[in-house]
This record gives sequence, structure tokens and C-alpha cells, in this order.
Amino acid sequence: MLRLSPEGYYRFTQADRFEATYGGAEANVAVSLSNFGVDTAFVTKLPENLIGDAALNAVRKFGVDTRFIKRGGGRLGIYFLEKGASQRPSLVVYDRKSSAFSLSEDSDYNWDEIFNGAKWFHFTGITPALSDLTAGICLKAVRKAKEMGLTVSCDINYRKNLCSKEKAREVMTELSKYIDICIANEEDAADVFDIHADNSDIQSGVIDTNAYAQVASKLCKKYGFKMTAITLRSSISASDNNWAALISDGVNYEISKSYKIHIVDRVGGGDSFGAGLIYSLLNGRDMKEAVEFATAASCLKHSIEGDFNLVSIKEVNALMAGDGSGRVKR
Amino acid sequence: MLRLSPEGYYRFTQADRFEATYGGAEANVAVSLSNFGVDTAFVTKLPENLIGDAALNAVRKFGVDTRFIKRGGGRLGIYFLEKGASQRPSLVVYDRKSSAFSLSEDSDYNWDEIFNGAKWFHFTGITPALSDLTAGICLKAVRKAKEMGLTVSCDINYRKNLCSKEKAREVMTELSKYIDICIANEEDAADVFDIHADNSDIQSGVIDTNAYAQVASKLCKKYGFKMTAITLRSSISASDNNWAALISDGVNYEISKSYKIHIVDRVGGGDSFGAGLIYSLLNGRDMKEAVEFATAASCLKHSIEGDFNLVSIKEVNALMAGDGSGRVKR
Amino acid sequence: MLRLSPEGYYRFTQADRFEATYGGAEANVAVSLSNFGVDTAFVTKLPENLIGDAALNAVRKFGVDTRFIKRGGGRLGIYFLEKGASQRPSLVVYDRKSSAFSLSEDSDYNWDEIFNGAKWFHFTGITPALSDLTAGICLKAVRKAKEMGLTVSCDINYRKNLCSKEKAREVMTELSKYIDICIANEEDAADVFDIHADNSDIQSGVIDTNAYAQVASKLCKKYGFKMTAITLRSSISASDNNWAALISDGVNYEISKSYKIHIVDRVGGGDSFGAGLIYSLLNGRDMKEAVEFATAASCLKHSIEGDFNLVSIKEVNALMAGDGSGRVKR
Amino acid sequence: MLRLSPEGYYRFTQADRFEATYGGAEANVAVSLSNFGVDTAFVTKLPENLIGDAALNAVRKFGVDTRFIKRGGGRLGIYFLEKGASQRPSLVVYDRKSSAFSLSEDSDYNWDEIFNGAKWFHFTGITPALSDLTAGICLKAVRKAKEMGLTVSCDINYRKNLCSKEKAREVMTELSKYIDICIANEEDAADVFDIHADNSDIQSGVIDTNAYAQVASKLCKKYGFKMTAITLRSSISASDNNWAALISDGVNYEISKSYKIHIVDRVGGGDSFGAGLIYSLLNGRDMKEAVEFATAASCLKHSIEGDFNLVSIKEVNALMAGDGSGRVKR
Amino acid sequence: MLRLSPEGYYRFTQADRFEATYGGAEANVAVSLSNFGVDTAFVTKLPENLIGDAALNAVRKFGVDTRFIKRGGGRLGIYFLEKGASQRPSLVVYDRKSSAFSLSEDSDYNWDEIFNGAKWFHFTGITPALSDLTAGICLKAVRKAKEMGLTVSCDINYRKNLCSKEKAREVMTELSKYIDICIANEEDAADVFDIHADNSDIQSGVIDTNAYAQVASKLCKKYGFKMTAITLRSSISASDNNWAALISDGVNYEISKSYKIHIVDRVGGGDSFGAGLIYSLLNGRDMKEAVEFATAASCLKHSIEGDFNLVSIKEVNALMAGDGSGRVKR
Amino acid sequence: MLRLSPEGYYRFTQADRFEATYGGAEANVAVSLSNFGVDTAFVTKLPENLIGDAALNAVRKFGVDTRFIKRGGGRLGIYFLEKGASQRPSLVVYDRKSSAFSLSEDSDYNWDEIFNGAKWFHFTGITPALSDLTAGICLKAVRKAKEMGLTVSCDINYRKNLCSKEKAREVMTELSKYIDICIANEEDAADVFDIHADNSDIQSGVIDTNAYAQVASKLCKKYGFKMTAITLRSSISASDNNWAALISDGVNYEISKSYKIHIVDRVGGGDSFGAGLIYSLLNGRDMKEAVEFATAASCLKHSIEGDFNLVSIKEVNALMAGDGSGRVKR
Repeated sequence: MLRLSPEGYYRFTQADRFEATYGGAEANVAVSLSNFGVDTAFVTKLPENLIGDAALNAVRKFGVDTRFIKRGGGRLGIYFLEKGASQRPSLVVYDRKSSAFSLSEDSDYNWDEIFNGAKWFHFTGITPALSDLTAGICLKAVRKAKEMGLTVSCDINYRKNLCSKEKAREVMTELSKYIDICIANEEDAADVFDIHADNSDIQSGVIDTNAYAQVASKLCKKYGFKMTAITLRSSISASDNNWAALISDGVNYEISKSYKIHIVDRVGGGDSFGAGLIYSLLNGRDMKEAVEFATAASCLKHSIEGDFNLVSIKEVNALMAGDGSGRVKR
Repeated sequence: MLRLSPEGYYRFTQADRFEATYGGAEANVAVSLSNFGVDTAFVTKLPENLIGDAALNAVRKFGVDTRFIKRGGGRLGIYFLEKGASQRPSLVVYDRKSSAFSLSEDSDYNWDEIFNGAKWFHFTGITPALSDLTAGICLKAVRKAKEMGLTVSCDINYRKNLCSKEKAREVMTELSKYIDICIANEEDAADVFDIHADNSDIQSGVIDTNAYAQVASKLCKKYGFKMTAITLRSSISASDNNWAALISDGVNYEISKSYKIHIVDRVGGGDSFGAGLIYSLLNGRDMKEAVEFATAASCLKHSIEGDFNLVSIKEVNALMAGDGSGRVKR
Repeated sequence: MLRLSPEGYYRFTQADRFEATYGGAEANVAVSLSNFGVDTAFVTKLPENLIGDAALNAVRKFGVDTRFIKRGGGRLGIYFLEKGASQRPSLVVYDRKSSAFSLSEDSDYNWDEIFNGAKWFHFTGITPALSDLTAGICLKAVRKAKEMGLTVSCDINYRKNLCSKEKAREVMTELSKYIDICIANEEDAADVFDIHADNSDIQSGVIDTNAYAQVASKLCKKYGFKMTAITLRSSISASDNNWAALISDGVNYEISKSYKIHIVDRVGGGDSFGAGLIYSLLNGRDMKEAVEFATAASCLKHSIEGDFNLVSIKEVNALMAGDGSGRVKR
Repeated sequence: MLRLSPEGYYRFTQADRFEATYGGAEANVAVSLSNFGVDTAFVTKLPENLIGDAALNAVRKFGVDTRFIKRGGGRLGIYFLEKGASQRPSLVVYDRKSSAFSLSEDSDYNWDEIFNGAKWFHFTGITPALSDLTAGICLKAVRKAKEMGLTVSCDINYRKNLCSKEKAREVMTELSKYIDICIANEEDAADVFDIHADNSDIQSGVIDTNAYAQVASKLCKKYGFKMTAITLRSSISASDNNWAALISDGVNYEISKSYKIHIVDRVGGGDSFGAGLIYSLLNGRDMKEAVEFATAASCLKHSIEGDFNLVSIKEVNALMAGDGSGRVKR
Repeated sequence: MLRLSPEGYYRFTQADRFEATYGGAEANVAVSLSNFGVDTAFVTKLPENLIGDAALNAVRKFGVDTRFIKRGGGRLGIYFLEKGASQRPSLVVYDRKSSAFSLSEDSDYNWDEIFNGAKWFHFTGITPALSDLTAGICLKAVRKAKEMGLTVSCDINYRKNLCSKEKAREVMTELSKYIDICIANEEDAADVFDIHADNSDIQSGVIDTNAYAQVASKLCKKYGFKMTAITLRSSISASDNNWAALISDGVNYEISKSYKIHIVDRVGGGDSFGAGLIYSLLNGRDMKEAVEFATAASCLKHSIEGDFNLVSIKEVNALMAGDGSGRVKR
Repeated sequence: MLRLSPEGYYRFTQADRFEATYGGAEANVAVSLSNFGVDTAFVTKLPENLIGDAALNAVRKFGVDTRFIKRGGGRLGIYFLEKGASQRPSLVVYDRKSSAFSLSEDSDYNWDEIFNGAKWFHFTGITPALSDLTAGICLKAVRKAKEMGLTVSCDINYRKNLCSKEKAREVMTELSKYIDICIANEEDAADVFDIHADNSDIQSGVIDTNAYAQVASKLCKKYGFKMTAITLRSSISASDNNWAALISDGVNYEISKSYKIHIVDRVGGGDSFGAGLIYSLLNGRDMKEAVEFATAASCLKHSIEGDFNLVSIKEVNALMAGDGSGRVKR
């Protein structure tokens, strides 16, 4: 997607220029993984025009393999982002109807070829929510992925403006059969899977981690996920958030350090967590290490402009090791 | 429409920010007329979101009456503009499918109310080409306009990526019954009305004005237009154009001075001509004066960034009076 | 006024470009009210040049009626704003001597016509402080306003660099006879009306709300105001402020929620409070609702660049309803 | 003066930022001379505020001695510049009333100290036109300069919005007694000294150099100037000018090469000519060399943003020597 | 290399920001070929820091294979570019001493692996001129290339500030034994190979194409090049150039169309010619087609910001086919 | 040095423009002192090119005497700065090898002339660390300074990437013989002088001021410094720091107020402390006043973009006097 954002804290109607970057849930994960040195391919469909070219170049720049990006009919999805501050929330205006990707068809993707040699397939709940076409493509992909022995992860990422809770539940329930690693936040669990944390008040920012550990555990048990990770954001204001996460295998759980974050750009925070988790699990880290790495990685994302998490393993490790003091590195 | 344009001469893939302005054929005419001091209302439909608000504010800023702008379903049409230079042409990537306006319905516009007290109705050929809905709305509007005694003008503005020549011809032929003043360029006449200038070679930039006077005359006669104006652009390069126009009432014609223009932004050049012509005819100027005013106004537009022609009557008059030397005014 | 401000946190001498916006106490109130959907006209005098045009367009953009803006002799007042951060305060360098408005004369404004159909007249203490001419115009306006049954509100807004305390007291005492709703901050009450809060230390940021309730009450009683609102800013640093307000009718008082604000741009904060108060009282809200709405509205202003408060009723209501967590709205 | 200019070719009303630079006729000459390695002091009065500091720093940056700049009452003069293109002229909106300099008094300048060790005093006709105060200061300065043996040069620089032709003539006639080197353009000669070139049509851009040689000669004879230089601009459009100059000692004259200039910024073009001329004459070059150097220097100025001519002697010499091909210097 | 360039036409001392792009002779050719759809790998050495990463990403963005880019000791070469206009030339200040590449050693590059499956090897005369190390690497590379059957092309690109003519001649003479396709301009032929065009005057812009055909022919014969291409630039000013080229196989020659170019950015013009030529010859086009394609491609480059030629085959073909009128493509 | 920094919080690879400012430890001190009204000369060597000119102009702008700046061989040192936020640290990539200054020789500086009339000589530990040449120059300078009766101050400023601790200790030990006033931070004391604070944990931000008073005292005693000042930074994050300092004469010590700083730009913070200290001691302030002034000055520096501390004595005094509330100054 093309992301269009007024500079600084301008409102849309004040802006006579928009910062133009490219992103989107799965693209963000792909770029972050590539920055961690993982061979990553991004699969999507982009329009056959110069704006589509620009989007492709934007992910290719970070080393993501773009061979499987189909080009053709439709437009590039857009979202407008107005960055909030203090009590004023950030606003997203979606404009992604009729995107080339949402109109893409089964025949656009040859999963045998795409998955050849791959170990992991990641998608988010946004993709099946875009259209029945993409829901079908997702189902085909996860079945083929399991068949070919890939690990499948999914970030639920429920967006109420894309489809109803009922529809999301129906679609995700079927897809969940093929999912190994589930990533969700507190709202996803409630909205899509109807599994609730009892003692949490999202608006107030108070989070009861035990309650969320239960939620994660229940998700593992009910849907057969090997692991479920839940990100825990408490929003003090548009400028300051606390950020942590936990992971459960249905039996045990691990909870990460919590970070007080002064926000530069929080869009893509969840995706950067997903990338950190996949990287960790791909490299055999245990639950504790994985959730710490993923949380530290996504903590850093909040200090970076744009959707993409442009940090290296070395930088994440430094933060995990306790260096969050922000002293100048010379 | 929202116009998104890389800064300066950057190509799309180089741009990490887009200049964001608002425009569109009829909006451009409205703003230009308002800058000439004419009471002008703009009729369209904009989405009910912050991007729609920004578009509305952009025309309201210049004094255009926005009371008749309907808000509701659909998106804001977008076009991406990459400014060319020298031998590299400017490129437009349209992204206006499913715009709120193209989805608007008859019931969105109360023409009795809109035309109450009005003297002139202007539209362009882009509007009926957007959808069958908007074609029907146009037809209803022009019929009502004639019924209520308004002068009707239309800038043909044929865009091949919006509809086929055949479709355009069919729709415009019906609408032409209600049109008093027709504005076209050499391609419009040929593509939509199948009336050709014999000795012109657009690519080479050689223009035979007599041939175009014949074209204008034929259009008046065949379709009953009171006047037909034809703009004459010879494109030396993306940086330099010659610009003139002629107007015919079917019997006589007048041709304007020709301007050698060093281009700042040529989008909206035709619309600014239309506004100049309407202003002149509304104020009782004769054909010679009208075509000179309109051509001088649109000459100045080429030196102004964005779609809108932000010049005053005084500035147009100064150029008409021969002061094109560009000496500093202190 | 034209506001010229270095980008970001640059000091004047570092800046090779200034952000150019337009504002001023009464203009800010007008724009904010227009954004709340209130029909609002702005009355002033602007120079008859392109800079005056730009200022006029800047308020017209937001739907403010500009019919009563007189054009003519003098210059556009300017203020230079250097944004502070942390311990470094924001600095304002005024350059508004000989502005067209300060030179305007009685005959420039036809109050019968201006007030025809109007319900409310708002001005600030800056206007009578500009010149004897404008003080006279103010007096004429408030008398006519009362005569024609308008509610009159005034934000005291004392600026020591515009006139002496003594002069301000003299002029405001006369004007106060016609004022229904008075808005002030702690310094205004002391400087202009010589009414003091006993236990407040502005520099330290400690505010005793009871003391201010007494001040407001005394103002109502002494000058016959129907209501007096007092804004309570405690400045932690140029980057962080606490913000609240109270309102009194001389008998009872209501105090708003207090907001911890991370500042984007605090200029116009008081004006946005005034607009929120006027909107509330115009719409029949009681003192408690009014002071909460006005404070929430002005809290949001601090997150918005420029003088104008560009927020909608919906956004203010959301904050009043408790959603200040700044979570992304999608 | 502070110069405020929309970026690129934006009109004032489109600009949400202004480029902020500093300049003014005499400052421009001082900076250019300093760039040529001449020890130069700039004498003026600036307000005692941060905007005044910024102006002072702007000339100090280029090595101009700022010791004699008086600080005190009044404001910094401002001019707004909208850059034209093609047929659209550049526009200047002056806002310099009540500038600290125009209010300065005799006692602000100690000419004995200022001229101590100096060889040359340069001023322009703008200074005496600002106020009777500055006219008096000029007269005092030129008398003292002559007394102390300095060469005095003056660029007539008539601005009709500053004073009437009659007033200018009166003041300049008195000052001319002390002027050695006079710089003028065709309009100055006519407006201020009532000496006309017979066969020139400024608007059309046709210039008869013989006629101007006569004008220069007459000026020398009538006012006793040792030399008079006349700059010859023919304005093809706001984007393209031809530029040349001639110099006469009343007997002989020399005319420079003519340059076809593609304009970046033409403000300060005349001042850069003055600086080139002073440099040449200070260094003993003859009339031919002087007029060629000055014209080449000012030709280069037209390619430089801002008022100041930021070129070195080496660069001017290269152009004089015939290298105007613009090939990349590596 | 990192290219640092003031915005627009600012001089270095005026700039408080530099546009930062990446480029360099061979990188430019690689990116242009990749934009033409050719599989291209770029071989160099970049420092092991974040600036090196940024440079690598800049070419990877356009699909260039970066696997063979060695990372390690040294810095990233920099060049500062000040864009000229009209009579003021563009200036380049090189700062590339001790670049990682210039310090690279034989062992950094495994040519067997790099050339495996490749058809063409291109380098420029800048590389062997950087250091004895890189001269040795070049020699090793061309020998291996010939051994493995690759076509070898070289753009002479002589830079007098890198090495003496004598040194260049010595090194290039040895390398020439392995070169199939030689690209040069008139100065290269003279400075490096001491082969002169008799009737050309570079400064004046007059070019005698016959003379250059002789030069090309002589180069083929003396050094055994299969083909020699010579680019013909006549520089009217920094803003306007004429541009053409010819190619000879020692017997016959073909000369391209000549283009009058209004310059946006001329750096990389020669490299884009090289890329066009390689593309053409790789795809079996004959000399006439090749020189026309390469000249049209490089003509377009002059309208594009930065070192890289960001045009597609389709765009070059359109210009070759005669469409240089710059009409808007919608 | 030229400092190149992506705008806002962009990472290097995201930036297509760099903010270009000039700075460096000693230059920063010189500019700050000049802003305090102290006559200051800066002694260095800059390359003889336009980038060197720009660097010279950058300090001259603030009134620093540049007569003793030598021009000649080598390049301008560069450092790339990526501004951190929250948990992401700021990063500096140095690129200063082979700078003109590091290559400068004894004969470039005539200390007799430079020190003629001077009272104070300040240098930092960076200078002798650059090269053996500059270490020798430093030694010569301090000896001459002592001989001519100047006070000598040194900010240790140890940079591990410039030289080893062992080398630094050796060089600084010799230089220390001539130093009157030593400025250090906790790391400098440990790394260079092997004097440690027992109970401090830099990463955690906990600082034991008593321990540092001991360190300062020991330094005075061991090396014979008249005074040693130690800056105490506790880094909460890249966005928030606490900042204080202490000074000891070996017997007594004074500790400043501590400031909670919201950071705009912390580079040059230490240098601004040095300038504040020198100013205070030059003007006869006692240890308490000096450390308070220096700390307040450097607190303000953290709110200012670029290396230079652009504040006046008046502003520092206001903060010292307790006004850190950041209220707008009108």
C-alpha cells in the first residue's frame, strides 16, 4: 500500500505535501525479516503502472525477493495517516477498495514454486478480509504450506472496517486449522475469537497480564496453535505508550520486559513484533528469548518513521541486553 | 480530485513526498472564475471523511460557494502527476474509479435550487464519461439549465482512458443539443466529433490555424453551438509550448495572439481558458476580446503550480495589453 | 496577522525558511467556531495587496464568512514565533505597528449590517489595545451589539507590550459594562482588573483552584459579567503543560478535568478555549458541560500546528468522554 | 531587510512557507565586495531583537564588518517577493515603513570613525528616499566622505513607491554634487534626472546602445560625475533576460558584452553590477575592463538565489574570459 | 559514492541541507541496465557501516544484484555537486580519497564466480585511475572476462584530478587490449589516447562530426576495438545543451539524431549512454539502432534528478520514434 | 567538520536529504563564547575549496574571528549523525580521516601572533588524538600559551575510535602540565586518567555525586589543575536526559542544579558547558556561579538544533534565576 501522511503533526487539511512511503502488514514483516538477514520473499499483486513500480522498489530496496510479485489489473491500495500527538489520536483513512491485490485470483500465484525451499509462511488476517478472492487464496496457500512442511504464522490483525466480526470469525476459524503460530492483541482475541481478558480496560491503559496469559492459552487449546503471542499496548497518549508482550504454548507462558516508549511512529509496531518472533523461532530461540527479542524489536520500531522496522539484529540485541538509555553511539 | 505530484522533476519512484493539491476540470474553472470576482458555486460529491473535507476547503479558500457539494459514499478520486521536462513528457496516472462523484445519483443534486438565480452552467466531457450515473446527471442538469434560461458551456476534454470514442460521441451528441458554447482542442474535435483539421501535425507542433477555424465553424453548424473555441497548443517540449486559441460563431472567427511559454505547470491550462472565456462572455465582451482574454489567462496559468489558475483580472488585462516582458512589479 | 515561524525548533538566526500561517486572537476563535459548524463572520481590515488576499483566503478556507472584511490602507500585522522546547521558552517578536486593522476607522464597519441576524459578538482585549481608533470601534461595536440583543464575550488577553496596565484597565473597565461573558487567565485578572489569586505561583506551576474560583466570582460581581471563565495553565516546560479551566457565574463555579499535555503548538490555546465556550453556551450547555467542552477543545489545540484549532465537535466530544489515550483511529 | 519569498514559483496565497533571506541594495553591494576579498563595512541600523540579530549575522557570515551597525528602535524592513516565470512577472510587496534604519538619526553614525582609513563610500538612491532623516544622513555622509578623500558612488535605484519623481530629483540633485561614480538604468535617468534615451522601448526589450551612451555622457556633464554606468536589461520574459551595460566618462564610453540569461533570481542584479564596478575601479581597471567585469559579475548573480551575489573573482574572470558554456567544473 | 547536492540552484555556502543520493560511473550503468530489464550485478567494495548500507540499498532498490558487493575497510567516497544555471557552471568537489573501493584488494573479488553465466563486463576509466590496487584489479578482471568469453566495454571517462594524462595513457593502453567496445568523448580521446579531432572547439559548442568519426575510426584501428562510440555534447549554457553521439566500427560509422536539451541534471549523462549502448548491442541491434537508442536514453537522463537514469525501454523507444514533444501522457 | 544528519528521526537509509551544518568541539566553544559577547578566534585548517569556505562562513556568521584559519591541503572532516529517539540511540559515523586539520603542520600556526592580546586558550582532547602532527601542535600551543600568560582549559572529550586509551593517557598526561582548567565527564576520567567513580552506573543513569566530587578532586591534585569540572549526564532515553555538573578546586566543590531535559539535539552539550565555564571564569564568577551558569547554558543547548549553542547571556541568566517553565516570552 501507499501510505500518505502529512509532515510532522499537520492535519490533512493543513498539508500541501504528504510523505509517501509504502507498507502494509505482510510487507512490513518481510522487510523487517530481510533486515535481520533472513531470505524473504514477498507475495502480492501490484498494478502495472509507475506507482506499482515504486511500491515494488520500496521493498526490493531492503533485499526482499520480489520475483513472486504479480503485476496487473486494479489500483494500489492507499491509506492516509494523520499522526496524532498528546490527546489527539492518530487517524487512518483507508482507500484500498479495488486494489490489484484484493482483485487477484488463484491463478496469479503458483504456491508450489513460491514455497519451493521455503521454511515459513506468514500472513495476516487482513488478507482474507479483503475479498472472498483473497480469502480463497489464503486458504489455498496455507493448505499447500502445511503440505510442503512450512511453519505457518498468522497475525490476526482484525480491522472492523474491512469485514464484520462474524465474517472474520468464520474465515479465520477455517484458516486456523493450518496455523502454527498465532499473533494477536487483546482486541483481536475478543473480536475474532470471542475470547476475552476479564480484567483489562484498554482505554485506561491498565493491563492484567495474567488475564492475557489465559487468553493466549485458551487460543492455543481451542485452535491448536503451537504458540500464541499477545502484544500488550497501554496507550498513555498518542505520544507515549507502554509496550510488552507474552507468549504461551498453551501450558506455560513467558512475558517480556515492558518498555515506556516515546513514540515517533507507531504504525507497523505489531508487524515488527511478528517479524521478531518469526526470526527468533526460525533460529531456535526459546519462548522467553523469542518474546523478548520480538518485543525489543517492536519497541525500536516505534522510534522509526514509516511502516518498516529498519533495525538490525545487533540493535535489537543491544536493547534486549538492557541498553535502552539512548546514549549516543559513536 | 486529489493531485499527488513528486516535488520538482522527480520521478514517482524517487519521491518520498508528494505535493498534495486538489483540482479537476470543473473545480479549476470554478476557482478561476471566483478569482475573477464571479460568484461561483461548485457542484460535486465528496466522501464523508477528512480527505473530502480537505478537498472542500481547497476550493472554499478561493471563495467558491460549496453549499451544493454533496458528501457521502465512495472515495476521493486521485491522480498522480509526474512533471516532465525537456523531451521527457509529464505523466498522469489516474486513480479515480469508484470516486464519490462517479457514484453519485440523481437525487444528490437539486438543480432547481442550484440553478436558482444562476446565469451560466459549465461542465466538461469528463463528467459524463465517468459513469452512466454521471452521464444521466449531466443530461438532467443541462435540460434543467436550458429550461431555466442559463447559458450552457462545455469543454469536451476527451480522455481515452475514461471511455471509448464511440461512447463519448454518443453521449456528447445528445448533450450537445443543450450546449451553447463549446470548447475543444484539436484532438477532441477529431476523437469525439469526428471533425478533423486537415493540415495539422500535433506531434510536430505545426498548426494551421485556418484548418482549425474550419473545424470550429463546422462544429457550430453541425451541433448548433453559438460559439466554438479551439485551443491551439504546439508542444516544443515538456518545458516549452506555444499557446493560442481561436473562436468561431460558425460564420466569423477570431484568433488570439500566440504565446511562447516556458512551462511551470501546464495541467489545468485548458480549464483556465474555459474560465477566461466564460468570464468574458458573461461580461459582454466580443469574440475577439473573449478569445484574447481567455488565451492570456491560460497563458499565465502555465506559470502557476497546481491545477488552479490563481490570477486576477488585472493581471490578465496587463498581459493582454502587451506586457509579457516579465519585468519585476514593485 | 501573518505568523512567521522557523521550522521545528530552529532559532530565528538558523532559519532560512519560515512557516507562514495566518492567525490572531479573534480570527482563531472564528475559525474554530466555523469548524464546529457555527455560522461565523470575521470582521477586520486587511491591506489591499496580495499578502492581505492570502490572509483572507486563510480564514475563508475554513468556511468563515469574509464579507465584512474591509480592505485598505496599512500593512498586515506580523508576528515572529520561535518555538521553544524543554527549558527554552517560545519567543514572540511582534511586528504589528501600523497594521491596516489598527489604522481602521469607525466608518469601515457598518455594525447594523454586520450584526443583522447575529446572536453573539466576541472580541479580545488585544483589539482595544492596538490604538485609540480600535478602542473606539470596540466600544461602538459592543454598544450596538447590546442594543441589538447579542451576547457579548471578551477574552481579556492582556499584552504588556501593547499597552500599559493602567491604560488597559481604563479601557476594559468601560467596555466591561457591555460584556456578558468574560474569559481571562490568572495574569489578566491581576494585570487588568487588579484582582489577585492569593496562593498561586505561576512560574512554579502550582495552582490553587479555589483561589481562582474566588477571582472569577469577584470579577462577575464587580463588573456584572454573567459568567467568568479562567484558564489554568501550569507550565512544566516549553514541552509539557498542564491545562484546565473553571467557570463561575458569581455564585457557583465548575472546574474542568485537568490535562497533561505534550505540546505541539500552544499558541492559540486560549482562543480555542473561547471558541469552545461560545459554542457550548450558544448551544445551551450548562456551566459544567461548557467548561469541560472548552477545556477539551483547547487541550486538543495544543497538539495542532498553527494558531487555528482544527478539530471537530466529534473529536472534542470523544476527548470529553474520556478517550485521551491517543489510540489510532482506523 | 528581511526578504520573504514563497518557494519555487508559488504565489503568495499558495505558500505555507516563505524562504527567509536578508538583503537590501547597500547590503548586497557590501556582501559582493566582501566576496571579492575587499574589506567592507556595512552601515545601517537594525532593531534590537532576534530578527535584527539574524539580519546582522546574515551579512557577517560573508565577512562584512558589522561594527558600525547601530541597534535600536523600529522594526526590520521586510519585502515579500513572489518569483515570476514566463509571462508572469515577479512581484514585490514592500513592507518597510517604520524600519529602524528609516527612523535612524544623525547621532547614530559617527562618520569620522566609520570613514577612518576607508577609500570608498557607496550608497543608493533608496536610502535618501526612505525618510527626511535618512536623506539628511546621506548628505552628511557624502560631505564627510568627500572631505576625507573617499570616492563616492551611488546607484540611483529609483523606486516610485518610495517617493515622487520630483522629490527624488530634488534630493538627488543635491547629493549629486558629491558623487563621483553614478550607476543608473534607463528608467532612473529618465525618472530622476529627466534625461531620456530617444530610441528605446523598455517593454519591447529593444535597446539602442548609442542612445544610452548619450544619456550617460549627459549625466556626467550635467552633474559632474567622473563616470556614469548604465545597465541595459532587455526583458524577454520573467524567465529570460538579456543583460549588458555601458560606462561613460562624458567623453568616451565602453559597452560590455551582452549575455542571454536564463534567470534563477534577478533581484540584486543591479547591486551586483555596482559591486563589480567598485571592485574594478578600486583596483585600477580601465573603463572597458570595469564594465566587462561588472557585467559578468551581475550576469552570474542572475543564476544565484537570494539578494547576495555569491561569486568569486575567479568565477567572474572565467566568464569574462569567455567561458559561459556552463560545462561542469570537476 | 554518496552525492551531496544543495537543493535547487543554491550554492554550497547557502545550503543548510544537501540532497543525498548515491551514484558513480559503473553504478549508474548498472542501474540503468536493470531498469531496461537486464540482469545486472554491481561489483564494488563499500564500508561496513550504515552509510555503506544506504549506498547498497540505493542500487538494490532498482533490482541490481548486490551479492558481489564486498564490505569492509575505508570510507564511502563522496562528491559534492553544486548545480549550475545559465552562465554559472555546475561544480563538483570530489572527496573520495581512501574510499573502501579504492583500497580494495585482489582477494576481495572472485571473478570466476562473478563472471559465471555473465555475458558482458563493463567498467570505466575511473576505476583504474583510483589507485594502483584498482588498476590491478581491473586488469585481472578484463583478462578473466576475455578468457570466459564476455564482451568487455569501457567508458574512458578521464578525470584529470584523479591521475595524470601520462599515467592514464599507460594504464588504459594495457587495458585496451581486452576491450571490445570503447566509449569516449572528445576530451577522452585527446587526453588519454592523444587522438584529436581537428575542427572542434569545445568551449564554443561547435562540433564537426566528420572529425569525430575519424577519431572513432582511428581508435578502433589503433587499439583493436570492435566499436568506438563518441558522445558529442555542445554546451550552450549550464541550462541548455545539445547532445548527440556517433559510433564507428573502424570502417563505417553512424551518427545519431541531435537533441536540444533543457537540463534538469546532467551528471550521469555519459553513463546512461553507455547503458543504452550495452543494452542495444546485447540485444543484437545494429550500429545505427544502438547509437540512436543510447543517445535517446541519455537525452532523457538529462531530465532526471540524480546520477541514475530511471527510464524504461518503452520511454526510450518513444523518444527514438520521434515523440520528443513532451505532451502529457495520460 | 561538516555534520550530515537525516531530517527528524529518519535513519540514514531512509534519508534523501541530509541537514548540513558545521561544528566540532572547539568550533562549538568558540561560537558559544562569541554569542556571549566574548571576542573569540577559532584556529584550525580548512581545505581550499567551496566546502571549506562554507565551514568558515558558518562560524564567521556568529562573529568568531576567522583570521587565523589556515586554508590548504586535505579534506573537510565529516560526521554523519542519525538522531535517536526513545530507546533507539543516536548514532555517529565519523569520516574525518585525512582532514586538512589533521594533516596540518607546525608552520601553519603562528602562536605568537595568535595569542597576542589573548587571555584564554581552549582546546579539547580530540585535537591531539587526531594525529601525531596535531598532538605536536597542541603541545607547542599550550607551552606558548603558558609562556604568554594565557589561562589554558581543556575538555578531555575522549573518543575511543580516535585513539587507544593508552595513547590518550600518554598524550594527555604531557599536555596536562599546561592545563589550568580541566573539563571531563565520568568516562573521560576513567578512560584517560584511570580515575574512577566508585558508585556510578552510567547505563542505569544513577549517579553518585559525591563519588564524582572525589574524582574531580583527585584530578586536580594529581595533575595540578586549578579546577576540574565534571558533567553529569544520566540518560533516561535518547529523548530524555538529566543533566548537571560539578566543579572542584581540589579542596572544595560545588554542584549545580539538575535539569530534566527533553532533548532536541544533544550533540555539543559538553562543548556548550565548556563555553559557559570559560565565560564565567573569564568574568570572575566564583565556582558556584560558574558551574550553575555553565550547566544552565548547556541545558539550553539540548533544545537547540545543530552543534552550536545559540543562546545569549540573558537567556542563560533567566534559566539560572529559576525560569525553566518554558512560558511564552512575548
